[in-house]
Amino acid sequence: MSDATIAAATEAAAAAPIANTKPQSSKKASKKSKKQDQFLLKTPKGTKDWADKDMVIREAIFGTLTSLFKRHGGVTIDTPVFELREILTGKYGEDSKLIYNLEDQGGELTSLRYDLTVPFARFVACNSISSIKRYHIAKVYRRDQPAMTKGRMREFYQCDFDVAGNYDTMVPDSEVLTLLCEGLTSLGVKDFKIKLNHRKILDGIFQACGVKDEDVRKISSAVDKLDKSPWEAVKKEMVVEKGQSEEVADRIGNFVKLNGSIRDVLQILQSNDLLKENESAQKGIEEMSILADYVDAFEIAGFTSFDLSLARGLDYYTGLIYEAVTSASAPPTNASELKEKAQKEKTEVEDASEYVGVGSIAAGGRYDNLVGMFSNGKSIPCVGISFGVERIFSIIKARATKELEKISSSQTQVFVMAFGGGEGWNGFLKERMGVTNKLWSAGINTEYLYKSKANIRKQFDAAEKSGAQIAVILGKEEYPQGQLRLKVLGQGDDSDQGEIINVDDLVSVVQDKLSSLNKDGLDEITRLIKGL
Amino acid sequence: MSDATIAAATEAAAAAPIANTKPQSSKKASKKSKKQDQFLLKTPKGTKDWADKDMVIREAIFGTLTSLFKRHGGVTIDTPVFELREILTGKYGEDSKLIYNLEDQGGELTSLRYDLTVPFARFVACNSISSIKRYHIAKVYRRDQPAMTKGRMREFYQCDFDVAGNYDTMVPDSEVLTLLCEGLTSLGVKDFKIKLNHRKILDGIFQACGVKDEDVRKISSAVDKLDKSPWEAVKKEMVVEKGQSEEVADRIGNFVKLNGSIRDVLQILQSNDLLKENESAQKGIEEMSILADYVDAFEIAGFTSFDLSLARGLDYYTGLIYEAVTSASAPPTNASELKEKAQKEKTEVEDASEYVGVGSIAAGGRYDNLVGMFSNGKSIPCVGISFGVERIFSIIKARATKELEKISSSQTQVFVMAFGGGEGWNGFLKERMGVTNKLWSAGINTEYLYKSKANIRKQFDAAEKSGAQIAVILGKEEYPQGQLRLKVLGQGDDSDQGEIINVDDLVSVVQDKLSSLNKDGLDEITRLIKGL
Repeated sequence: MSDATIAAATEAAAAAPIANTKPQSSKKASKKSKKQDQFLLKTPKGTKDWADKDMVIREAIFGTLTSLFKRHGGVTIDTPVFELREILTGKYGEDSKLIYNLEDQGGELTSLRYDLTVPFARFVACNSISSIKRYHIAKVYRRDQPAMTKGRMREFYQCDFDVAGNYDTMVPDSEVLTLLCEGLTSLGVKDFKIKLNHRKILDGIFQACGVKDEDVRKISSAVDKLDKSPWEAVKKEMVVEKGQSEEVADRIGNFVKLNGSIRDVLQILQSNDLLKENESAQKGIEEMSILADYVDAFEIAGFTSFDLSLARGLDYYTGLIYEAVTSASAPPTNASELKEKAQKEKTEVEDASEYVGVGSIAAGGRYDNLVGMFSNGKSIPCVGISFGVERIFSIIKARATKELEKISSSQTQVFVMAFGGGEGWNGFLKERMGVTNKLWSAGINTEYLYKSKANIRKQFDAAEKSGAQIAVILGKEEYPQGQLRLKVLGQGDDSDQGEIINVDDLVSVVQDKLSSLNKDGLDEITRLIKGL
Repeated sequence: MSDATIAAATEAAAAAPIANTKPQSSKKASKKSKKQDQFLLKTPKGTKDWADKDMVIREAIFGTLTSLFKRHGGVTIDTPVFELREILTGKYGEDSKLIYNLEDQGGELTSLRYDLTVPFARFVACNSISSIKRYHIAKVYRRDQPAMTKGRMREFYQCDFDVAGNYDTMVPDSEVLTLLCEGLTSLGVKDFKIKLNHRKILDGIFQACGVKDEDVRKISSAVDKLDKSPWEAVKKEMVVEKGQSEEVADRIGNFVKLNGSIRDVLQILQSNDLLKENESAQKGIEEMSILADYVDAFEIAGFTSFDLSLARGLDYYTGLIYEAVTSASAPPTNASELKEKAQKEKTEVEDASEYVGVGSIAAGGRYDNLVGMFSNGKSIPCVGISFGVERIFSIIKARATKELEKISSSQTQVFVMAFGGGEGWNGFLKERMGVTNKLWSAGINTEYLYKSKANIRKQFDAAEKSGAQIAVILGKEEYPQGQLRLKVLGQGDDSDQGEIINVDDLVSVVQDKLSSLNKDGLDEITRLIKGL
């Protein structure tokens, strides 16, 4: 299977057909790629074009999240897509190998950003900021195995909200969790669960179980795999690859199997003898008790699950960590079968969509030392959340196939046409331009056909495709007498001749008509996004 | 001067100070960079962070242009920030050396996009699209000499609108010119001029003057420098570097000095004997005559100037080309002096802001063969415009220094506080969370101070910084009786105690109050953008 075939096939699966396009069949695409041996006509591996209704949905998701972020007092920033390479070094643990580097073309060494968190910390340090609530919606880059239809890509958007500043324990943290619940609910994701854990508790458990301090991070990253691998595999990694004894691993195993409500798990931890003397664990337990109160105040306890198997791969977290998952997050039940089959058929698996789940749809945590890494240790405590918007998109898309039909990708309101024919008929092109220009000046979204003479059918077809609600018609006899015809579209009544209006009244009549047409109309895209 | 000093200095000049930040002086920054020899704490050369009010202005510019693009029936797409390298090869003439490459990390060879036009053509070809009006607001990358305060950067936004499809001559072209005028006017840029030219006329002139076909493109790129260099320098380049005779160069010189209204310049060209037999020139002249009519229909003739010195550097244009300029576009009158001084003082000039102008603020043209380069010659004609939004930003910023003070970077509406003290006072933190949560649920932008106990002064300071219009106050005595105090902020009347309301009425009272406060209020950012 050629790259082009796969790109076309995943594209076809992931995206609605683009306006004016016949969807490419795999067959057609592979024929094409043979003909064009100079060009592989595709986007780079793990990236895709966004267009048409997919784009409308994604923009609506961004709009929903932007309102949410502003509701919580957020301001937005924009940092460069690449950073000096040394800024990113040593921040991502085992995932550092996934960073994209720019070529050394005789200047500074730079890399594409891997997330929005490290650039945010660099920004806070660079500008000596003492407190900020910032949101940032932008693309990040990871040289990972793509699973395109599950929203796992090499170039993808993150929608981040972070609070930097010295505040009381768990106060901003609980607000971020509330914002997470609000965000997912307003995107129509209702069956989600927020897994919570605390790095200080986790580190304390590892220490109390007998892991040496220098091994804590690598044992943590083994535990992080528990959402994808069974305990036996993780245990094996600890013992065989990471040099822990069986007993240490088993002790850890007893802890990381624990999960439940914050208060229930706290009770178990508080009564555990192993942890009694561990300072780190006790500090974490104290913070989680405070969090339990605030989670109640915000009425979001029902969404949370204290889950000791949650570790999060990244190095920079220092306190509370969390991940939101839904039923779509897990891989299909026959995943390992599908994976084997895929690997037998191809030498390299190009797209893992078949046998992976969507994964977590939002994740984050507290990172109190990251800013300090850029400012001689004078740090600003931070906590934040990142929404995986392409993953949420794939969930919305899967549930909204029917509603999608009602959505138009353009927002055209009026289509200007000319009717006429016979001797001396010139198509009224310049007149259509003039009338259209009047509507534009009034802020009305208007199109007309770019032909000097156009027949009636073609103009109506173009109007329909544009999604316009009203046709403004320049009749061969009527227009020279200062009159226009106005017809409401999409009523299914072809015999309706519309109404005659004066040219001078055009703008006001169209504005009135549009507001009467949209008075009771529900915004389809809002309904779709919210899952109503 | 170190990199960090320059970054800080240009930053300080280009951006408003960020909230909670003491603006860094150059002195302070250079001291800092000495201390941190491990880290150069800055963004890569030619890039910058956007934040605070600058970000609010830029977002408002994007909003204005997005409405404009939708008004003309545009739909938006999103393409990857990097493309397969071969897609970009051979599209940009002499500027190809400015393309950023990604490192070869064992996969496909890719490069950052140089503009949005080539990716658009690749997208049209990839998806076999026959017609589309698309807009795209995104970053592009050029390894060029930066001039940060003039909006000339290595990473910068383009805001593009393009029409692809087979339509009647000059119809979409004239709409794009109209859209350009609407766009600049709605951004408060009023003194602009659109320089127009036609590649077929220009090529015809070169041929008729005696330039060989294979030399036409390189002579064109010499002419392109006429906005920055005097005719004598350009002539020298033609004769000395590009092998033309003095006579050929002088003949070209007579043409490229011509400019004026479309109809006036057309008259001169139509009566020119040299061009009479030249097919290319005659075709271009015919098209420009048609354009003159449409420009009148759209009432934008006053903004245009037919200027035969306009050549545009890029290879892919095939027809009408244009560039919008304002008084800020030209370099300062003592530019060459400033440049010499800068070069004497430093070995390498890091920022050219001092001696360059803003340059063109929007540019574009017709490119009928670009899509065909990606689809075996089966091309789709295209025409488009790109707004240089950072350059427009620098013009708006320069004129709106006073209006900027009135703008808040967050959009917070309500600040929730607690008043109390004495014995048993716990700060009502959880109660503030609950009240805030009610306002969030109603979609109201609300903040509160992240402290369990906070004094009154600190809460009012935070409220003021947030830009909130209303304070909702939980009084130690009042709140337990189901009452809240509501106070309008920013009225300068500290003695005003506000009004008492019932907790149950909170949302409806706040909504009423907010709409009465904003009824007559003009949106400051809209006024600022439009230059009212």
